[in-house]
Amino acid sequence: MEFTECFPVWNQLTQPQQQEILRCVATREFKKGTVIYDGTTGCTGFIVVESGQLRAFITSEDGREVSVYRLFERDICLLSASCILNSIQFDISIEAERDCRVWIIPPELFQRIMRESAPLANYTNEIMQQRLSDVMWLIEQILWKRLDKRIAAFLIEESTLEESLKLTTTHEQIARHLGTAREVVTRMLRSFQSEGMVKVSRGSIEITDEKRLAALAEG
Amino acid sequence: MEFTECFPVWNQLTQPQQQEILRCVATREFKKGTVIYDGTTGCTGFIVVESGQLRAFITSEDGREVSVYRLFERDICLLSASCILNSIQFDISIEAERDCRVWIIPPELFQRIMRESAPLANYTNEIMQQRLSDVMWLIEQILWKRLDKRIAAFLIEESTLEESLKLTTTHEQIARHLGTAREVVTRMLRSFQSEGMVKVSRGSIEITDEKRLAALAEG
Repeated sequence: MEFTECFPVWNQLTQPQQQEILRCVATREFKKGTVIYDGTTGCTGFIVVESGQLRAFITSEDGREVSVYRLFERDICLLSASCILNSIQFDISIEAERDCRVWIIPPELFQRIMRESAPLANYTNEIMQQRLSDVMWLIEQILWKRLDKRIAAFLIEESTLEESLKLTTTHEQIARHLGTAREVVTRMLRSFQSEGMVKVSRGSIEITDEKRLAALAEG
Repeated sequence: MEFTECFPVWNQLTQPQQQEILRCVATREFKKGTVIYDGTTGCTGFIVVESGQLRAFITSEDGREVSVYRLFERDICLLSASCILNSIQFDISIEAERDCRVWIIPPELFQRIMRESAPLANYTNEIMQQRLSDVMWLIEQILWKRLDKRIAAFLIEESTLEESLKLTTTHEQIARHLGTAREVVTRMLRSFQSEGMVKVSRGSIEITDEKRLAALAEG
């Protein structure tokens, strides 16, 4: 896959802008679990995902996490360039949830071109709207969706991503995704198990009644 | 106050763009309580607040509300033009929380100029970042801040806005701002009252120990 294919407004940039980006864009690989950006590591830049999976999350003062969104192949991470986004006033961390290959455009270059290019500024705007939509969705989930439904939905999503009914996710990981405590997840999974929807064993969760679990998630 | 003073990138627009905006911008007044935008009323447009106070909120399927942000004099409301923001995928409502005077730029015009003007697109981007920051702040509050602290913080904020220690806010209104139930607010206010921080009477809440209430909000 070429970088230019994953950059939707590429053809609307001027030739000098294109040349400058091509000269500066870097490819990098990150092992699963690596924190790519967390506000203390300096400004990473504008990231385009070539392969793998990223997770953006926030952390409370006492170390609790909640996932805000995930990024997959061809997705774009803008918040890893928060230093050039003057009005972003929160800390976010981004980690490789699987082994990743990404392209990175240095933040200063991205900012300079965005200032002069209406297409790039409008495109950046679209991405920001998507993130805002992700975050609004999360608020609705947190406020109005019962935790049993959120856990069910998370298991279904994981199963789709892993293409398997047998998940290697830990209770701790689920808790971190959903911003709750491990004990709460464990209790809920036990209740799912007693209803025959999952089978919990050391280090794995098997979905044994996908249909009912999906119905719970949807409801 | 002139419209052009409240439009930060005004001087970076071309003269034809300025003229077109001046020809189309409309002044409107809304009485306190009026819903200006709710996704079903059609696309209102790009709103600049001349005076008054707006509230943006979301509503659950069963009618519960939570405030997402508030706008004051000179603030700009972009989500009232959601129809031209292709990647906004949520419903939001905007109401006049006090009597308001606003300027409105029609959505199509705003979109057309934004497409061709890098300054306007970048400015729109800044506003979007502010909203994303507001919403992230809200998530952190909901997830990690106890409800007693959130109610205390809301009372302090209201008191600042109303410039009075005697608030005319109802329990119902507080509940709608914070996305909780009226009964929960009533119970919490009673507990504040027993601690001597507020005095609750029919139709009003008086802050009797601002310092302790503020300390609770901050903690």
